[in-house]
Amino acid sequence: MLHLIGLGLADETDITVRGLEIVKRAERVYLEAYTSILLVDKEKLEAFYGRPVIEADRELVETGSDDILAGGDKADIVFLVVGDPFGATTHTDLVLRARELGIETKVVPNASIMSGIGCTGLQLYNFGQTVSMVFFTETWKPSSYYDRVRENVQIGLHTLVLLDIKVKEQSLENMARGRRIFEPPRYMTVAQCAAQMLETEEERQEGVYGPDSLAVGAARVGAANQQLVSGTLKELATVEMGAPLHSLVLLGRRTHDLERDYIREYAVNKETFDASYVKGYGASL
Amino acid sequence: MLHLIGLGLADETDITVRGLEIVKRAERVYLEAYTSILLVDKEKLEAFYGRPVIEADRELVETGSDDILAGGDKADIVFLVVGDPFGATTHTDLVLRARELGIETKVVPNASIMSGIGCTGLQLYNFGQTVSMVFFTETWKPSSYYDRVRENVQIGLHTLVLLDIKVKEQSLENMARGRRIFEPPRYMTVAQCAAQMLETEEERQEGVYGPDSLAVGAARVGAANQQLVSGTLKELATVEMGAPLHSLVLLGRRTHDLERDYIREYAVNKETFDASYVKGYGASL
Repeated sequence: MLHLIGLGLADETDITVRGLEIVKRAERVYLEAYTSILLVDKEKLEAFYGRPVIEADRELVETGSDDILAGGDKADIVFLVVGDPFGATTHTDLVLRARELGIETKVVPNASIMSGIGCTGLQLYNFGQTVSMVFFTETWKPSSYYDRVRENVQIGLHTLVLLDIKVKEQSLENMARGRRIFEPPRYMTVAQCAAQMLETEEERQEGVYGPDSLAVGAARVGAANQQLVSGTLKELATVEMGAPLHSLVLLGRRTHDLERDYIREYAVNKETFDASYVKGYGASL
Repeated sequence: MLHLIGLGLADETDITVRGLEIVKRAERVYLEAYTSILLVDKEKLEAFYGRPVIEADRELVETGSDDILAGGDKADIVFLVVGDPFGATTHTDLVLRARELGIETKVVPNASIMSGIGCTGLQLYNFGQTVSMVFFTETWKPSSYYDRVRENVQIGLHTLVLLDIKVKEQSLENMARGRRIFEPPRYMTVAQCAAQMLETEEERQEGVYGPDSLAVGAARVGAANQQLVSGTLKELATVEMGAPLHSLVLLGRRTHDLERDYIREYAVNKETFDASYVKGYGASL
């Protein structure tokens, strides 16, 4: 049996009781460690579980899935996923491969950023589709997300923007030379995301949003040191929110008064917040 | 301190380790029991926690919040919420009242139907706004949800429909006579939801969807006996999916091939599924 177990958002104690029971008795335990991260390291998980955990990087999952699944017809194999197994990313390939091999799959759900973002005070009902923001480079600044945001903006819905992480990436040179040397991990910040959004708007000039559009930055959702900041995109582009992971929500114009009151509490600057708000937001619009 | 603790979706073991630790040492533990239900009863939770749990119905939360919060400036008060505390419903009033009383609030996130619905194989990225379906009566068939669904349909996104539950409701007669006698609980089924959706379409005649539109019915998401069924709304209007809770997803036309393959596996009828699919769905549309 393959068990996909969600770890939740913050630390080792966010696993569910059911999930922990399975981890303790499983034959092997893998930790998916390339699409998201927990705010504690693998050693802390191992100490908490009282057993070893095998880190599964992209390479292992994509080319070594049969190693992961070996013996899964008789024994319990656990694949730990940060957040919810069906949350921001799915592991369809692994499940399909298990199905081909006649190995049953079970899932233990957990909190995901897709629902955890409710901690901002914004109603989950009022979110449109979720988009992802990747790190721009000098020559690659993909803006397809902008079209999705526009669709949400036209209806007046909030947009959750999930921010890129780069873990165990090789430089082009090291890749070319076949050296298994990896760059330090990088996690996009709220400030980088806001700056990139403004860069796209400047490029596309279609007025989907602008420097005065309101947004919420969320850091370390679900952790004791969770941090929330609201403000204009211009303000958020310079905000400092500390350690990863970060997410951003672009505010939809159909914001309810209760939502406004909640997010105004943690505004960078209540004056600019109010000035922007009256110009473009409110449930009656 | 007020702790809002998510219970997850299925049974007593879906609480997180962190949540359970707080429950065990708290002064008082309330269970919010009117906007959603866990698939096990209060006695099972009490046995698992080794302590009493106080059921908090709508009346207590709305008029007795000061009783719930009493002593919360010094002691730990727990308010258990099925799913995630910020999921399908929020308890803003209780949090705001706590804030007024100078009582700090902490949240323990958990799985919510808003992310758990990913178990259908539909990508959470491709969902638009969520809508709610209430029980229609002879004279009250609210259709504002239909306008929200249209917005999602126009973009091509999936719509999660959350289904009404009626717990501890009084008949008009009992209410008028002040008798605290309650009707048996009612939980909307996938079949009822599909039938009501078709009733609205017949009434409004705006072609947002129709009897041949594809949808997914999900019952007891996250539980061992979770059940998924896909088919046309006409088919789902007669499907039998057993015990609550149920949810429904109306398929958006922007469905990806991988999503189609996944949901086709559990189609009521693969022939009618394919016939409907080719007429209106596919990522390239």
